[in-house]
Amino acid sequence: MIFSAFKLNEDEPIYIQLENHIKESIDNGILQNGSKLPSTREVSSLLNISRNSVVSAYQNLESIGILESVKGKGTFVITEDKVEEEKFIINWNEKFNKYASVCEELDIMKTELPWKKGMISFKSIAPEENMFDLEEFKRAFLTAWSLEGDKLLNYGYAKGYKPLIDYLMNYMSEKGVNTEEKEVLITNGFTDGFDMVLSSLTNENDVVICENPTHNTALKIMRAHGLEVVGVNVENDGINILDLEEKIKKYKPKLLYIIPSYHNPTGIVMKGEKRKKVYKICEQYSIPIIEDGFNEELLYSGSHTPPIASLCKNGNGVVYIGSFSKILFPGLRIGWIFGDKNLIGTLESVKRCRTIHCSFLDQGAFYHYMNSGAFFKYVKKIRKYYKDKYKFTLNEVRNNIPCEEVMGEGGLHIFIKLKNVNTREVLEKCYEKGVVFMPGDLFYTDDSGSSTMRISFSRVKKSDIRKGIKIIGDVIKELGNN
Amino acid sequence: MIFSAFKLNEDEPIYIQLENHIKESIDNGILQNGSKLPSTREVSSLLNISRNSVVSAYQNLESIGILESVKGKGTFVITEDKVEEEKFIINWNEKFNKYASVCEELDIMKTELPWKKGMISFKSIAPEENMFDLEEFKRAFLTAWSLEGDKLLNYGYAKGYKPLIDYLMNYMSEKGVNTEEKEVLITNGFTDGFDMVLSSLTNENDVVICENPTHNTALKIMRAHGLEVVGVNVENDGINILDLEEKIKKYKPKLLYIIPSYHNPTGIVMKGEKRKKVYKICEQYSIPIIEDGFNEELLYSGSHTPPIASLCKNGNGVVYIGSFSKILFPGLRIGWIFGDKNLIGTLESVKRCRTIHCSFLDQGAFYHYMNSGAFFKYVKKIRKYYKDKYKFTLNEVRNNIPCEEVMGEGGLHIFIKLKNVNTREVLEKCYEKGVVFMPGDLFYTDDSGSSTMRISFSRVKKSDIRKGIKIIGDVIKELGNN
Repeated sequence: MIFSAFKLNEDEPIYIQLENHIKESIDNGILQNGSKLPSTREVSSLLNISRNSVVSAYQNLESIGILESVKGKGTFVITEDKVEEEKFIINWNEKFNKYASVCEELDIMKTELPWKKGMISFKSIAPEENMFDLEEFKRAFLTAWSLEGDKLLNYGYAKGYKPLIDYLMNYMSEKGVNTEEKEVLITNGFTDGFDMVLSSLTNENDVVICENPTHNTALKIMRAHGLEVVGVNVENDGINILDLEEKIKKYKPKLLYIIPSYHNPTGIVMKGEKRKKVYKICEQYSIPIIEDGFNEELLYSGSHTPPIASLCKNGNGVVYIGSFSKILFPGLRIGWIFGDKNLIGTLESVKRCRTIHCSFLDQGAFYHYMNSGAFFKYVKKIRKYYKDKYKFTLNEVRNNIPCEEVMGEGGLHIFIKLKNVNTREVLEKCYEKGVVFMPGDLFYTDDSGSSTMRISFSRVKKSDIRKGIKIIGDVIKELGNN
Repeated sequence: MIFSAFKLNEDEPIYIQLENHIKESIDNGILQNGSKLPSTREVSSLLNISRNSVVSAYQNLESIGILESVKGKGTFVITEDKVEEEKFIINWNEKFNKYASVCEELDIMKTELPWKKGMISFKSIAPEENMFDLEEFKRAFLTAWSLEGDKLLNYGYAKGYKPLIDYLMNYMSEKGVNTEEKEVLITNGFTDGFDMVLSSLTNENDVVICENPTHNTALKIMRAHGLEVVGVNVENDGINILDLEEKIKKYKPKLLYIIPSYHNPTGIVMKGEKRKKVYKICEQYSIPIIEDGFNEELLYSGSHTPPIASLCKNGNGVVYIGSFSKILFPGLRIGWIFGDKNLIGTLESVKRCRTIHCSFLDQGAFYHYMNSGAFFKYVKKIRKYYKDKYKFTLNEVRNNIPCEEVMGEGGLHIFIKLKNVNTREVLEKCYEKGVVFMPGDLFYTDDSGSSTMRISFSRVKKSDIRKGIKIIGDVIKELGNN
């Protein structure tokens, strides 16, 4: 390495050039006390010079005490400079602020029992990658590449790749949403979108209302921002309206965060009438709604319920955060915020200040994939696939797990409320038997979720679903009998 | 669209199913007051049913006042529900917090004179995309794809793609940096890395010291975080050491942010001896160093000066943020933070809380590109290309622009100090003549940069460089004579 940038000139003897280069490398710190030099043979072959020149250079430097040759080991640098012995040590753990500490404390990758090889895991709601449409996506990538590969690799715009933005505007419009005076900003998935919205609209100790339970990552992000999170109970058809209005009156929250479709973790779909009520209450008290549409495409039965954003018409009180990560390519981290153009205008500056923009290559490939129509064929295919798995899992749960309630109508998971059994205890025993799931308490704003659990099936094969649910059921029965 | 999810059953007359579907769509808001229905011909063809059934359904709904047919225009929905007239309006501009407001105020894309078609722009330090190694990168992408495309499209790890992390650890090691007890976290470019470091280590009103002038995006990020930014003057060989020590004593800053190689905007390379002094002072006062290595690969002459991180040995006081965005694929947004493993461990949780991780597909393709050796061939090629352009620009500047000082030894830009001429005035006049550049004040922590300017040449062709510099020079001469 030390000689790789080295160029010989023709004006000086080679051994002198070598000596000078080594001295320079010591002066500017590339070579330090104790650094080992390449062998004379290696240097002569690398630079295509005679080995004698290298040997001369090394010997001269040895003679003035800069190098030391240790028999059988090689040639080493010696410097007088021993100040390096004092180390520049920072105790980083003392340096983190509250935000970083909360991010770490609530990082379930660090706090929860780790998955081990061979275990059956009902933890993740990542999509099944074997279902991915690899050929179509590769084609989309190559299309993007051949049309404007060089452009996509250079800096783009904070708001996102224009054709993808237009596509998503139209996509929102097809969901029944009025897009007048609205805009789209491309984000690194839902997480980035939600984090940017909170970063821009809230201050420490502000109150935010959400469903109880709610998406655990959203809960983590709200807490990392130092917000006071107030939960409103979720019933079988969605959030409790009376409770919502009461808490809005009491806390005057900065905003409402809500997941109306295939709610995480319960899988509940809030009915149209209830959506209108939520909307009306928020309108009345002027509380912006942040609608999380992450799972909206996973419709298993019945007709689609339009997002709350569709009720807004040419009003601007609803901000919709979308993502395809639960069905399509979460590895790319592509999501979007749809909302009032003034809001998006400022969020564009925030995005520019945080990451400049999202990968333009990914956005280009993603756009061509969507635009080719491949996405709709794919959605049709996976709806069938996941619906079948959902029914299978539901059946296994009903037959094996004694419980108070099984919730949900869709999504990649099932939510279960046990009868007075602590799911942390269940998890501990299941872990010993090689099965893991998400303890429900992680989704709660308070401590009312200790008997709940989320079972995700997207990436578990049927035989393992059967085996795993049986184990969970047996553990619960055993604990229930004690 | 309203019929695309509609499925016919065999138990009921088709027209009744159609009527019910339309009613449902109105109830749940997909169809709203004034929505236009597809023509009977379109529906019959889409659903492959007789047109008469569609006509019957439309007529029945007309008869009960739910639809209205307007001659020559089509069939429209009428609902009694007029509550939508009250709009849910939020005045978003009143809702933003300080952070969002500063991000917008300091967003030069919004505040600076916009580039217009045909203008010669010396503003951007984005790389010349015509130089990109498209074939090699496509090959790398396809390699990544065929090896593990499905995996790369699914969720990955917050820290990054392991082979790329290992590659960068080795890359740091080859720069002469001791990697013991250190780790790498992949970020969405330098911006994301720096923003995460500040988000995790600083609180509002903390003091941070940097060079004056410094990278304008870094300045914006520091200000968005509400930090007090104290600048230390930059001389021809780097930061002023006496001033640095004095200000460290006076302000006890949270950290020092510094760009030792091809400093932005001046292009200065801080010499090895000075690096040691900076390092020693920070060690003495226990001030962490955030080293920005963004341009380090753009070496035009002489031997490479190792980063300050290399002085740290097995200490941990230096955090190095790297990026190839000024030479390679900024559109992908890939950078990294290299530092103490405890620091990186917590930043990993912060990354997970903000965007989960960076695009794994991009990381995979990037890794294979680097690992193929294509990168080093590319760097060799562009060094030559940019060095030539740099010399050309420098020559044009020296011959045409009357000034006090021309700074820099490398990078994609040249920094100029004029003699008592305000560069904002120069810019205004140049803009009228179709030439734009970066007014130097954007890079200053105080108001001492009013006579400075940055000329970036990376994407400007030689004939335009000549023409543009001539125009700038003429304007300055004119203003100087007044």
